[in-house]
Amino acid sequence: MGPTQRADSRAHTLVRMIRLLEEAASKGARLVVFPELAFTTFFPRWLLEGEALDNYFDRSMPNPQVAPLFDRARALGVGFYVGYAELTAEGQRFNSAVLVDGTGRIISKYRKVHLPGSVAPRPGAKYQQLEKRYFEYGDLGFPAVRAGSDWQNAIMGMMICNDRRWPESWRVLGLQGVELVCIGYNSAAYDPNGGNTEDASLRTFHSTLVAQANAYMNATWAITVAKAGDEDGSGLIGGSCIVDPNGRIVAKATSLADEVIVADIDLDLCRQGKEKMFNFAAHRRPEQYRLITERAGVVEPPELV
Amino acid sequence: MGPTQRADSRAHTLVRMIRLLEEAASKGARLVVFPELAFTTFFPRWLLEGEALDNYFDRSMPNPQVAPLFDRARALGVGFYVGYAELTAEGQRFNSAVLVDGTGRIISKYRKVHLPGSVAPRPGAKYQQLEKRYFEYGDLGFPAVRAGSDWQNAIMGMMICNDRRWPESWRVLGLQGVELVCIGYNSAAYDPNGGNTEDASLRTFHSTLVAQANAYMNATWAITVAKAGDEDGSGLIGGSCIVDPNGRIVAKATSLADEVIVADIDLDLCRQGKEKMFNFAAHRRPEQYRLITERAGVVEPPELV
Repeated sequence: MGPTQRADSRAHTLVRMIRLLEEAASKGARLVVFPELAFTTFFPRWLLEGEALDNYFDRSMPNPQVAPLFDRARALGVGFYVGYAELTAEGQRFNSAVLVDGTGRIISKYRKVHLPGSVAPRPGAKYQQLEKRYFEYGDLGFPAVRAGSDWQNAIMGMMICNDRRWPESWRVLGLQGVELVCIGYNSAAYDPNGGNTEDASLRTFHSTLVAQANAYMNATWAITVAKAGDEDGSGLIGGSCIVDPNGRIVAKATSLADEVIVADIDLDLCRQGKEKMFNFAAHRRPEQYRLITERAGVVEPPELV
Repeated sequence: MGPTQRADSRAHTLVRMIRLLEEAASKGARLVVFPELAFTTFFPRWLLEGEALDNYFDRSMPNPQVAPLFDRARALGVGFYVGYAELTAEGQRFNSAVLVDGTGRIISKYRKVHLPGSVAPRPGAKYQQLEKRYFEYGDLGFPAVRAGSDWQNAIMGMMICNDRRWPESWRVLGLQGVELVCIGYNSAAYDPNGGNTEDASLRTFHSTLVAQANAYMNATWAITVAKAGDEDGSGLIGGSCIVDPNGRIVAKATSLADEVIVADIDLDLCRQGKEKMFNFAAHRRPEQYRLITERAGVVEPPELV
């Protein structure tokens, strides 16, 4: 998806999403992957409160605002992944995604675990990154789900944005035998406040690199989908791509605008990796991995004596 | 390093290694990385026993056979990583590597954790992969060590061959703040028994991909070094490279023969990643990673009901 401006109505954005869904269906797609927070602009860049913030959240999924997308998908027999801001009945807020099958049924839900940004706003900065302020850490783990026959009974998993840079996310799905990972993202193309950091080319390289390597290391397909382009003066990378279990890119977006890419997903391509090189039961040594779950941050070794 | 044939004497191979060391030193290198099992052919491809097997092992490191390499390195003030087959006084066998500083002192030792291959030989196969038969699983974990001032007090870690395909190896080092990972490997270029599997090009891509992505995801430099070419009719990939903490290749071997590649290692390039995107203490969520240490193999989700 191309950018969504703060002034864009939800209805306008939904029309774009339905148009993309229809184009994908016309090209034979049975599964469509939309980005993270697909229904709105990437609002964590703004310091908001009260109703101005709440308007970005969905209190249920589906709901009347998004029903036209669900209805059109069901009519076409196409399922989808979509990211949205979730506000629960108990008042909890999550950066979430759902996986909807071709009958319109939600078969899995995921809440983003790796929230970037900060709780406190950066004083004086024009653009913020306030995901840690607006969302709680995901509390559903990384659930893999076996889809129905529409999707060849694929074992499917979800991530959201920053999760894809953390090999732990992939491995927890890999340990459930995942065959297809769906990921939506909004990733900055540069520091919108003018800091001297990585450029869009390097950031796109990083995004693609982690999808390729982690797909290979878990012998899974991956579909990674950007919201891209300029949102109210803040740039987002593109680089949406479909990656096979060898880590090879089989389809890649070429623009920062609304664009459909499609690929045939042959799940049998997962077998070679899962049965040989990455036969986890035969080759993993969990007793050597303890630091991964015992420690969050770095503890450096002492000086050499 | 290019290939080493079964008939090659250890003395002959040591002369090659010293020549490579001297060439690297003449180009300004302070650290030289040799491959896995660098002193011999990749002998796990052969079914061996008794003295024929023991001759490939070193009972101590250094020892009189390898002393000329240690002596020359110390004279040049150059340190090195080298892989060898270790036979302990208690009769244990490991696929090991040591890190030797510019004064000739061994500052760290590593024993390969991820052993590929099998215990039982493949009946009738011309070439075997018997690492699980000849070696015990490494029992030293993935220790990171802070090197001395010769190496800018870098936090350094080691892996051997197949370890590099397992993100757990990298993460355990990353959680110790690793800044430079040294890896030697012998990786098949194709199935030497004529099976229809990945070709050399795809295998080299995999080898490079995992080094790039895991270096990026742990904000570390990586030096990954092949023994390459045709060893007694069995092909090994090349693809030795030096990767920066952004996952970019800064130097890459172009041949399957003895070849020196060099790069300047600026450890400060690790800082951006370690302090922001991959600030582990701020962003990792170990409570969501439990499967990684609780489970070795895959458990698939149930059918959807």
